Amino acid sequence: MHHETAYRNLCIATREVALLQRVQDLLEWDEQTQMPPAGAAYRADQAAYLAGLVHQKQTAPEIGAWLRELAHSPLAAEPHGDTGTVIRCLQQDYEKKVRLPQSLVEELARLSVQGQQLWSEARQHNDFARFRPLLEKMVALKRQAAEALGYPETPYDALLDEYEPGASTADVSRVLRELRAALVPLVGALADSPQRPDTTILSRHYPIAAQQSLGQAVAATIGFDFSAGRLNVTEHPFCIGLGPGDVRITTRYNDHDFADGFYGILHEAGHGIYEQGLDRAHDGLPTGQDVSLGIHESQSRLWENQVGRSRPFWEYFYADAQAAFPQALADVPLDAFYGAVNDVRPSLIRTEADEVTYNLHILIRFELEVALIEDQLPVGDLPAAWNEKYQHYLGVTPPNDAVGVLQDVHWGAGLFGYFPTYALGNLYAAQFFAQAAQDLGDLEADFRQGQFAPLRQWLRQHVHQPGRRFTPAQLVQRITGQPLSHAPLISQLNEKYRALYGLS
Amino acid sequence: MHHETAYRNLCIATREVALLQRVQDLLEWDEQTQMPPAGAAYRADQAAYLAGLVHQKQTAPEIGAWLRELAHSPLAAEPHGDTGTVIRCLQQDYEKKVRLPQSLVEELARLSVQGQQLWSEARQHNDFARFRPLLEKMVALKRQAAEALGYPETPYDALLDEYEPGASTADVSRVLRELRAALVPLVGALADSPQRPDTTILSRHYPIAAQQSLGQAVAATIGFDFSAGRLNVTEHPFCIGLGPGDVRITTRYNDHDFADGFYGILHEAGHGIYEQGLDRAHDGLPTGQDVSLGIHESQSRLWENQVGRSRPFWEYFYADAQAAFPQALADVPLDAFYGAVNDVRPSLIRTEADEVTYNLHILIRFELEVALIEDQLPVGDLPAAWNEKYQHYLGVTPPNDAVGVLQDVHWGAGLFGYFPTYALGNLYAAQFFAQAAQDLGDLEADFRQGQFAPLRQWLRQHVHQPGRRFTPAQLVQRITGQPLSHAPLISQLNEKYRALYGLS
Repeated sequence: MHHETAYRNLCIATREVALLQRVQDLLEWDEQTQMPPAGAAYRADQAAYLAGLVHQKQTAPEIGAWLRELAHSPLAAEPHGDTGTVIRCLQQDYEKKVRLPQSLVEELARLSVQGQQLWSEARQHNDFARFRPLLEKMVALKRQAAEALGYPETPYDALLDEYEPGASTADVSRVLRELRAALVPLVGALADSPQRPDTTILSRHYPIAAQQSLGQAVAATIGFDFSAGRLNVTEHPFCIGLGPGDVRITTRYNDHDFADGFYGILHEAGHGIYEQGLDRAHDGLPTGQDVSLGIHESQSRLWENQVGRSRPFWEYFYADAQAAFPQALADVPLDAFYGAVNDVRPSLIRTEADEVTYNLHILIRFELEVALIEDQLPVGDLPAAWNEKYQHYLGVTPPNDAVGVLQDVHWGAGLFGYFPTYALGNLYAAQFFAQAAQDLGDLEADFRQGQFAPLRQWLRQHVHQPGRRFTPAQLVQRITGQPLSHAPLISQLNEKYRALYGLS
Repeated sequence: MHHETAYRNLCIATREVALLQRVQDLLEWDEQTQMPPAGAAYRADQAAYLAGLVHQKQTAPEIGAWLRELAHSPLAAEPHGDTGTVIRCLQQDYEKKVRLPQSLVEELARLSVQGQQLWSEARQHNDFARFRPLLEKMVALKRQAAEALGYPETPYDALLDEYEPGASTADVSRVLRELRAALVPLVGALADSPQRPDTTILSRHYPIAAQQSLGQAVAATIGFDFSAGRLNVTEHPFCIGLGPGDVRITTRYNDHDFADGFYGILHEAGHGIYEQGLDRAHDGLPTGQDVSLGIHESQSRLWENQVGRSRPFWEYFYADAQAAFPQALADVPLDAFYGAVNDVRPSLIRTEADEVTYNLHILIRFELEVALIEDQLPVGDLPAAWNEKYQHYLGVTPPNDAVGVLQDVHWGAGLFGYFPTYALGNLYAAQFFAQAAQDLGDLEADFRQGQFAPLRQWLRQHVHQPGRRFTPAQLVQRITGQPLSHAPLISQLNEKYRALYGLS
């Protein structure tokens, strides 16, 4: 009876924190989609204040007391059951949070708002120097945070664990290197192939209003619920869950680039479908929360790549695309279009990269941010190091920092340890998709008829609904019967691209 | 020295409350401009939680202690000085806030979010019955709030005082009746005039994109700073200050109604210029806050009517309007257009009413809401009472509730006591404008040349910068040397409209 009361109080306090965190998220969403530039200073004060308030509530002594009381109670007995999951995850969260001083949390929140504004300006003016002092401060603060959190081997472990619980720098480093080794021969073979798609198709004129309505219609068809969500425009596409019934996705449009806007929507809709698929009865509790950023990314990547760059997907949607863009697409056969959206070539911009070379962009960021956090790379040397790695891994050199080191918002927002989850997401996606195809039979036939519900329901059941009942590694093992591996992704890429590029 | 510390602490706590109130305001803005419908329930929880938190901070015992310590200190000696204003106003605010139970504040906040959603649905479906139970609850809660706050004569006094400090129900009733008596002969004369503008001009086709860019350009020219503000679309136009550097206005567009969108923008830009004109050094303190809703409304009305419906204004902007809408306006001479935007006729919709009959719409709402709060009118009888008063005061009867009793969001949002400030604003605007014209000389010549800075600077100096140093009544007396009076408005209306309608 005592336990029951402690558990109920713990849940009330946790849901209250979630409610305030969603207020923080709204401020963040607004900052990126709506806020006028002159509002940044005050918004930074607000973000810092709320971060402090949330931290205070997360680390309140009574939470520690309830958790201690529950640790050996019958409610904690089943670690993957409802109450066991809640207690276990909240215990882990609490232990981390109490290690961070509130002043550091507030300072990071403030710097993150300023950092995103400054990054945006610096990128627009192609001026890394303008961004550098803030980034130096950010790296120093993130190092402080890592020291406060503690880590087994390297401070980067502590930051990575924030986004991908249980993952280590060494593991990620290993899997990214294995992946690279397996990708190199494929990238080489594709580069040598004489059969190349005509990508100029995608830079014809695509009126933005039509991009928006096609994107919205496709997102709705695959299952993003617009009565409980919306789509806005930002510089850097993202998805954010502002509460049950309110999941927001963003994209950016360029009227001479079909793929950037369209796949931005599809990718973020994948994230959104995950958020909308969480168990609402457990909203605000670990049992109703996403597992990790890597698993989140698996959902966006799966819809973007395994589904949205497949031929059956376009067999269903291509007529709609032609109707939306008659001038651009009337004379383009399906296969030419399908080839164009699957063009593989080393490129400068991560978010526009094809699914084969994409992970090399992540490897570059991962190596650089580990070096920054381990104090082996001064921020001032970052642009040169960036360009060098692009030349080394991808054979291209950014002509300027705007399309080089300044292309991503993450570091300005303090998101160190975040990038590797993109690559993990690609691996999980391939592994889940292979399993879904095995379980559900002919997925391609479904897609050809615009039937996405079977796949979506499968994902909901296996990936979305468990919440944080299992770690990412446990979830992959449970769903696929295998540990995390690069093999399914490499096999899918080989099969698809060797056919597309006419290789043996 | 002790006083200085108490004062400093009081200001820190007050600014913290302001910071949280602006978070509430962002939630409100987002609810009306962005939030998907399914997000309403959770948003109501968030609004209630924040309202409770703000109330808790506003009524913290240490604030009472600091105020008691400061009440007879030298810092309070000069009631209209910087520190004296802060202490006096915070004392008044505190006394009011401590009378309201936190549970009532939270319940009202939650009901207000639900009320706005329900109102919007009820209006769309022309279904008052759907809205009625919530409105009944809202009226009951507002009556409870009035009882808790206390009042000299009628519970409505307590609600009115929230928006127009120092105003009484009896005073407002008197001034509205005097105004009505003075308007009746003018409305009658205009109705009998054979010379009427051709208003069909304004319902030609006005593409929305062009409405938006013209409206934005005009708002910028009169002085709304878009680097510290933005314009969005809502069902019910409004302006909200989300902090220094972030003032947001909204409007609605109808591609066959020029006036609704354009004057929506101009009106809200007037509010926005007030917000942007407040003293930023005093942000978050009474010395940097707006005086009252009536004074706020005077600023929107002055730019909308005294400026934006004047012939000199259109002498400057009409070429831009013709360029924006060549199909609609190429063949329309300036005077025909000027006449059309100054059409006077009894109508159903307050926000679209001309400046002559507008105050009769307010009188109707004022009488109805006083009766609701005084428990003399059951909510169920409200639609019939509304229609009867429209027939009586304006000679028109709403064909349905959507354009009748459901046209305004206010009651669903719990804003009882708010409507009369619209009429007070009209009176203040006329009085301020007459004084500005006297002080600045030929304002019409300024407008003809697109010079709006002199008037804006005059308003900033006399109306915006004092913050809450004076009550509305004191401010009017200080600026114009006269108490509040309907005479300047009646004189301006008579002069303008008798000329326009060819009356003697």
